[in-house]
Amino acid sequence: MTTTLDQLRRLSPILEPGQDGFADYLNDRSVWTAPAAPLAVALPESTAQVAALVTWCAEHKVPVIPRGTGTGVSGGSTARAGSIVLSVERMDQILQIDPAARQVRVQPGLINADLRRAVEPMGLFYPPDPASMAESSIGGNIATNAGGLFCLKYGVTRDYVISLEVVIGTGEVLRLRRPVPKDVMGYDLASLIVGSEGTLGVVTEATLRLIPLPSDPVATVMGRFDAMEPVGRAIEDLFRAGLDPIALEFVDPVFMDAVARYNQEPPNRARTSVLIAQIAMTHPLDDPANQGRATEAVFRQAGARTVEWSASAAEADRLMADRRLCFTALSAEGPTVSEDVSVPRTELGRLLVAIERVAAQHDLVIATMGHAGDGNLHPCIPIPPGPDGDARAQAAFDAIMAEALALGGSVTGEHGVGLLKAEAMSQALGLTQMVLHRSIKQAFDPAGILNPGKVLL
Amino acid sequence: MTTTLDQLRRLSPILEPGQDGFADYLNDRSVWTAPAAPLAVALPESTAQVAALVTWCAEHKVPVIPRGTGTGVSGGSTARAGSIVLSVERMDQILQIDPAARQVRVQPGLINADLRRAVEPMGLFYPPDPASMAESSIGGNIATNAGGLFCLKYGVTRDYVISLEVVIGTGEVLRLRRPVPKDVMGYDLASLIVGSEGTLGVVTEATLRLIPLPSDPVATVMGRFDAMEPVGRAIEDLFRAGLDPIALEFVDPVFMDAVARYNQEPPNRARTSVLIAQIAMTHPLDDPANQGRATEAVFRQAGARTVEWSASAAEADRLMADRRLCFTALSAEGPTVSEDVSVPRTELGRLLVAIERVAAQHDLVIATMGHAGDGNLHPCIPIPPGPDGDARAQAAFDAIMAEALALGGSVTGEHGVGLLKAEAMSQALGLTQMVLHRSIKQAFDPAGILNPGKVLL
Repeated sequence: MTTTLDQLRRLSPILEPGQDGFADYLNDRSVWTAPAAPLAVALPESTAQVAALVTWCAEHKVPVIPRGTGTGVSGGSTARAGSIVLSVERMDQILQIDPAARQVRVQPGLINADLRRAVEPMGLFYPPDPASMAESSIGGNIATNAGGLFCLKYGVTRDYVISLEVVIGTGEVLRLRRPVPKDVMGYDLASLIVGSEGTLGVVTEATLRLIPLPSDPVATVMGRFDAMEPVGRAIEDLFRAGLDPIALEFVDPVFMDAVARYNQEPPNRARTSVLIAQIAMTHPLDDPANQGRATEAVFRQAGARTVEWSASAAEADRLMADRRLCFTALSAEGPTVSEDVSVPRTELGRLLVAIERVAAQHDLVIATMGHAGDGNLHPCIPIPPGPDGDARAQAAFDAIMAEALALGGSVTGEHGVGLLKAEAMSQALGLTQMVLHRSIKQAFDPAGILNPGKVLL
Repeated sequence: MTTTLDQLRRLSPILEPGQDGFADYLNDRSVWTAPAAPLAVALPESTAQVAALVTWCAEHKVPVIPRGTGTGVSGGSTARAGSIVLSVERMDQILQIDPAARQVRVQPGLINADLRRAVEPMGLFYPPDPASMAESSIGGNIATNAGGLFCLKYGVTRDYVISLEVVIGTGEVLRLRRPVPKDVMGYDLASLIVGSEGTLGVVTEATLRLIPLPSDPVATVMGRFDAMEPVGRAIEDLFRAGLDPIALEFVDPVFMDAVARYNQEPPNRARTSVLIAQIAMTHPLDDPANQGRATEAVFRQAGARTVEWSASAAEADRLMADRRLCFTALSAEGPTVSEDVSVPRTELGRLLVAIERVAAQHDLVIATMGHAGDGNLHPCIPIPPGPDGDARAQAAFDAIMAEALALGGSVTGEHGVGLLKAEAMSQALGLTQMVLHRSIKQAFDPAGILNPGKVLL
């Protein structure tokens, strides 16, 4: 009699329960998610192996938990009992870089930063830059429609997906869209896969759009603010003035201090919040420094305490690197839950004030940073000690989502729904949209085996 | 007893058969499509009226034929017997321009060019620019995911849709995505509506992304070529050299002559094809003329007979206006069918050669122009006189689609599927993708009343 593990072993390399490294595949970096032991972790090395695994799972009604590198924070790849975790990490090759087409064809396990590094010497650039870019995979980025710092100017992952190879829940392999910039044959199934968090299919190959490598930012301007209202004003005025920063990031003093501790640097005594604008050229006939000076004027007018310019590109890079470190630095000090809400840019000041109110109401420290220009903030809640710590943090987490919805925004801007936000999403979208979601899920995954319980309750 | 027309009249303004103007709503500009008389043409003035009409049609199993201004060429809005044509032309308002959010909220009947003109004084720009932009509506642009000349640099309609209000086939009104740049709550139903040609819902409101008004092009460079292979080489080399034109258009001598006749100008004696590159700045520290000179060098190296620069912005505008006139000029001389195929940029030379071969095989004149930089061409076939004229043109039309598919491309880059390409699309996508399409259609339109027979056979 062949066991389940024997059968799986014929389909793909696997790790069995108890084998070295098995435990590393059971969850992402979310808090409040409790993985249960899967039957096995599959490490397929080809589309054919992924298709064989999914076909087997559909036949045997075994759930499949697709994962990239597990850097998610919403529980999108949390394992469940009796499932197969399907990691695409071994499918990590760049299959073709085509400088004339400005496209790259890659496998899903490729690390985002490795893609960037590979195309840069050819004068090409892959813009989506989630904070996890040094570790996260393109497959995971597609599954969550990952954003990042430079989305403000360059757009999100969806904007760079040209064509996908996908294994749907029946085990069938589909090619969605042709590898051309313009293809309007039928419904946009490729965009449906982007952001579907492994519930509609497993991406096994992607053709991505590249752009010419942009010039370095010509100025990085940092405004320090004592309160949240003027931050909101500055953001709104910046765009109203016609400025076009490539990134506009916000960091509050709690995060500034956490990063300083992480870097073993002295703390920021002033307790100010920071807005960092990176400026690149838009109008060729404009003086490159004009936008920087105009940004400084907007920051001062809005009530910044001080405004500084980075003295060099190196200093600007360090500033952005510190910004990317925020969550790592804070969560190094204890379990921290990361929110990810998004509101219209013009409501950002109100959201910042609301977050302060929520922190006070629940007697919590909330550290906030994020992509201010996109109205996408990450208020992060270090879970306080004590028996009611989780409950208080959860209440604040929910309250912040409610505030974002009330301001016309979304409960998730770029981290995804996973387990943590499935209930909130269902409330926000309403019955009819949820029924449409279920019908689409049923069409792509009739056996209901693909990442069950994620995104859709 | 109330008649059907009585009932409809209570839901929305209508035109009855025989009323002035009724006949104007029966078809788009496609050839080979035969509209049949609808019960009525509805001219709703609000989302509520659209919802009431669709609800009534769902109850009575009456097909709804949504239309913008009817500038399509694929039969997407061809009327059928016993249907209601639903024109959104009276819902043509700009509801809000928000310069701080860089968004505009519009009704679907708004004309594309009117949107452009309205936002330009605020230093804002709506990039999608189909050749029909002076007449075509935003709703129709969304329904077909319209492209245009500047897509090469700025992307297609999908890239500018932030949020949609849609009436689906049950008559329910949905808001898809929040009006924020980043929202990953669930499946991307908004992208599913874009390009669905009225088969999944009627767009009643759209929130669109705007960008800062770009500077005028700094150079327009025109290369004249004697043959198709060097045109393909020039296009490929241009991108390989790292150049980044905002538009790269192709026009063949048949079209050049048609435009000259239309403008009552002397014909182009040299019988050359033309590549027009419009250059704007990308690298701020670069000399604006460098890209123009580099473009000229690429054209010459690839074998251009001559290369000219536009002497002025006015001359460049005239050149692009002539390019936009191509189809109008040719179809003014007799019934002409417009193809719309798209291939990888690197296969464009091969496609051009294949089109010449198809023309010779079927003893036809084929005039070709299009968005060379995007690999998206419009070979247009004047239907020859004689009893077999239609059959020969149809055979060539089908052969060109087959050539595009064989080169890895699509049977439609931007015009849409409508009636004319439903069969070709179904062949190209294959059974599994077509089954997914039908399931999605069934979910959004359970009564099957929305534009039946279009896109899906």
